[in-house]
Amino acid sequence: MRCEVVAIGTELLLGQIVDTNSSWIGEQLALVGIDSLYQVKVGDNAQRMEDTIRHALDRSDAVICCGGLGPTQDDITREVIAKIMNVQMRRDEDIVLKIRDMFEARGRVMPDNNLRQADIPIGASPIAQMPGTAPGLVCPVGDKVIYAVPGVPFEMREMMEGTILADLQRRSGATAVIRSRVMRTWGHGESALAETLAHRLEELDEAETATLAFQASGIEGIKVRITAKAESDAAVEDILAAEEALIRDLLGDVIFGIDEETMESVVLDQLRSRGMTLAAAEHLTGGILAMRMTALDPDQEIFRGSIVAAHDPENQKLPGEKRAAAAAQAARAQFGTDVGIAALAPGDTEDYPPGTVFIAISMQGTRKSRSVTLPGARGRMRSYAVISLLDYLRKTLASEG
Amino acid sequence: MRCEVVAIGTELLLGQIVDTNSSWIGEQLALVGIDSLYQVKVGDNAQRMEDTIRHALDRSDAVICCGGLGPTQDDITREVIAKIMNVQMRRDEDIVLKIRDMFEARGRVMPDNNLRQADIPIGASPIAQMPGTAPGLVCPVGDKVIYAVPGVPFEMREMMEGTILADLQRRSGATAVIRSRVMRTWGHGESALAETLAHRLEELDEAETATLAFQASGIEGIKVRITAKAESDAAVEDILAAEEALIRDLLGDVIFGIDEETMESVVLDQLRSRGMTLAAAEHLTGGILAMRMTALDPDQEIFRGSIVAAHDPENQKLPGEKRAAAAAQAARAQFGTDVGIAALAPGDTEDYPPGTVFIAISMQGTRKSRSVTLPGARGRMRSYAVISLLDYLRKTLASEG
Repeated sequence: MRCEVVAIGTELLLGQIVDTNSSWIGEQLALVGIDSLYQVKVGDNAQRMEDTIRHALDRSDAVICCGGLGPTQDDITREVIAKIMNVQMRRDEDIVLKIRDMFEARGRVMPDNNLRQADIPIGASPIAQMPGTAPGLVCPVGDKVIYAVPGVPFEMREMMEGTILADLQRRSGATAVIRSRVMRTWGHGESALAETLAHRLEELDEAETATLAFQASGIEGIKVRITAKAESDAAVEDILAAEEALIRDLLGDVIFGIDEETMESVVLDQLRSRGMTLAAAEHLTGGILAMRMTALDPDQEIFRGSIVAAHDPENQKLPGEKRAAAAAQAARAQFGTDVGIAALAPGDTEDYPPGTVFIAISMQGTRKSRSVTLPGARGRMRSYAVISLLDYLRKTLASEG
Repeated sequence: MRCEVVAIGTELLLGQIVDTNSSWIGEQLALVGIDSLYQVKVGDNAQRMEDTIRHALDRSDAVICCGGLGPTQDDITREVIAKIMNVQMRRDEDIVLKIRDMFEARGRVMPDNNLRQADIPIGASPIAQMPGTAPGLVCPVGDKVIYAVPGVPFEMREMMEGTILADLQRRSGATAVIRSRVMRTWGHGESALAETLAHRLEELDEAETATLAFQASGIEGIKVRITAKAESDAAVEDILAAEEALIRDLLGDVIFGIDEETMESVVLDQLRSRGMTLAAAEHLTGGILAMRMTALDPDQEIFRGSIVAAHDPENQKLPGEKRAAAAAQAARAQFGTDVGIAALAPGDTEDYPPGTVFIAISMQGTRKSRSVTLPGARGRMRSYAVISLLDYLRKTLASEG
C-alpha cells in the first residue's frame, strides 16, 4: 500500500510556512506500515495541482491532499479533486449547518464566503471529524482514493487519527499489526544511550523480533522507539512488553515515561497518586513551568500556582542553593501546598560558570537543592531548567516511595 | 526561470526530520524572483530519485537536489545525477585533499568511506563553498542545470548564498526584484478581512502592481501579505509602502504589527517607549502570558511578574468584570508596576455562555474591564485569552497616545 502526500499552498513554496504536516503524516503512515514514497508541495494553481495529484494517483494507491480547503478564492482543492473525479460539485447542507453553528456559537454571522466550504465533489464523503470550518473529504477514484484535509495541523491530525489511518489500513487489507512504543528518556545523550543498548541492538539485528530507534527531541530528551510486527494485537503487545522490560533493566530511571507521557504529566501523576499539591517560584523560568503544568491541570487542582518574578526576595544575600531552597519554601507557604519547587540563576555578583542554575524542592521532611549546568542560550536554557527541576522532583518523589 | 527543489532522504518521508531546507530555499528563490513551483521529497532510492529529478528537469529550468551527498552507501545523489547526465564518475583529487585536511585538522584519519564524497560526475563542477565533507556540485544538463547540495542546513545555506543564487540569477538574466511585507492582524476572520479588502483585491487583479494573500496563523491571527515586483529595490519598497498605507486605511487598528512583530513584542515596545512596567494576574491563563512576555524580556525589565493561581482572592464575591479589575489592580500593587492586567473565567456559580472570559487593565487614570467570548476548548481558549488581553492593552495604550 502506497500513499503519497500532496501539500497544497503557495505559502509553502515561498517558505512562509514550513510544511510540518507531510512529515507528521509520513510518520503516522510508517507506524501502520504504509509506504509514503513521495511527498510533494505545490502552489494554489489549478493546473499544477491537478497534474500533481494525477501523477501521485498514478504511482500510488492513495493520495492525501493537505490544504486549500479554506473559504477564500485561492482555496481550490475541492474543485481540482472534482475535476479529477470527473464529477460536478454539490452543496452539502449538513456542512452548511455545521459551519453556521460554529459562527453562531461565537456570536457571529457566517460570511457568504464560507458557503464555498460546503461545496464538495459528488461522490465524496465528508470526514466525521470537523474541528474547524473546513470539512475533510474521502474521494474515491476507481479503486484508489484521494483524501482532502485542511492545512491547519490540529484539524488535519484529528481527521487522520479519527478516519484516514483506519480507512487506509482497511483498504490495504493488511493483517500484520505494526505497533510501536516510545520510551522517553532524559539526562543522557544519544551516543551514551546507544552504548548502553549496543549489545541489545546487536541481538535484535539477528533476532528481528523488534527494532529500536533513537529520536532526539531537543529539550524533551531522547525517545527510544521499539517497533514490532506480528499477526495479532496480543502478539505484538507481548513483544513490546518484553522489550520494554529488557530496556528498563538496562536504562533504569533515565526513562521517565512512555509514549505520550511528558515530564510534567509524569510528575502530576506522581503527585496525584500521593494526594499532594505543588507550587513553584519561577525566578528564572518566566512562567514556562506554570504554563506546562496548567496545560495538563487547567483547574490547578494539583499545581496550585506560581510566582513569576525576575528576583527572589532573598536576592543575592545567600548562596544560590540556599536562595533556591528558600524560594521553594516560600512558594509552598504562599500557596499552602505540600510541595514547593524553585529554579533561579546566580546573582549578578556571583561567580559561576555560564549555564549554572539552582534548583530546589521543599516538602514535608525534605528540603534539598543543587546546582546544575545547562547548555544553550538563555531561552533554551530556561526550558532546560524547567525539565531539570521537574526531573529532580520526579526522582525525589520516586525515591521516597 | 523555474527552479524545482528535490529533498532527498528516507528520514524526511518518515517524519524523523522535518524538511526545513526546501522552505528556506523557496524563500531565497522568491526573493530573487525565481519561481519554485514544485518541491518534492523522495527517499534514498536510485530509481525513484532518478524519476523525480528527471521529471523536475522536464518542467523546470533548474533543479536543486538537497541531501544524499554523505559518505555512506545510501548517499547516492552523485551517482543518480551522473546517470541523468549520461556520464561516468571521476575522482576529484582536490576534493580528496580537502576532506583529508578536514579530518586531520580534527586529529583524525579520513575513513575510506569518505573517498566516495570525492567521486563526482564528469562535467560537474564542485561548488567553492565546502564547510563540511560533502562537496556541492553544479551539473549542466543541456541548457538546464542540476545543483547538488548537502542536507545539513548550514552547509546548504553557504552554498546557496555563495554560489547557487547568483548562478541562477545569471542564467535567468532577470533584473526584477521581488519583496513582500506581512501585515499582522488580530480579531477578524479570514473571510471578514477578504470582504473588507474585496474591492482592493479586484483592483490589484487588474493593476498587477502587487498581490495580497491571507495566511491564517491560528491564535496569532491572520497575516495579510503584500508581494510586489519591480526593477529596483527602491521601486519595490515604494510599492509596498503605498500598498501598506492603503490597507491600513481599510483595516485600521485590526493591524497590530508588521513582518516579524508579535502581539507581545508590540505591547513591550509600546510600554518601553512610554517607560512603563507591567505585571499580570493569571487566574485563567496559567503562565502562558508570563512565558510569552519573558521570552522577549528575559531580564523582566518591563514585564516584572505574574501571579499564576487558579482563583483570584475576590473569588466569586463580585461580578466577573469587577473581579478582573481587582485582580489587575492587585498585580500592579504586588509588583509595583505602572500597569496591571488580568484575565479570569466566571466562577462556578456564575451563569455565562461557554468561552466567557473577563479581561482588565489597571493603570494611572484608567481602570477598565470587559468580557469577551472566546472559541475553542480550554487549552486553546486560554491562549486566545492571552492574546485578547494583550490586544486590549495594545489598543488602550494606543488610544491614550
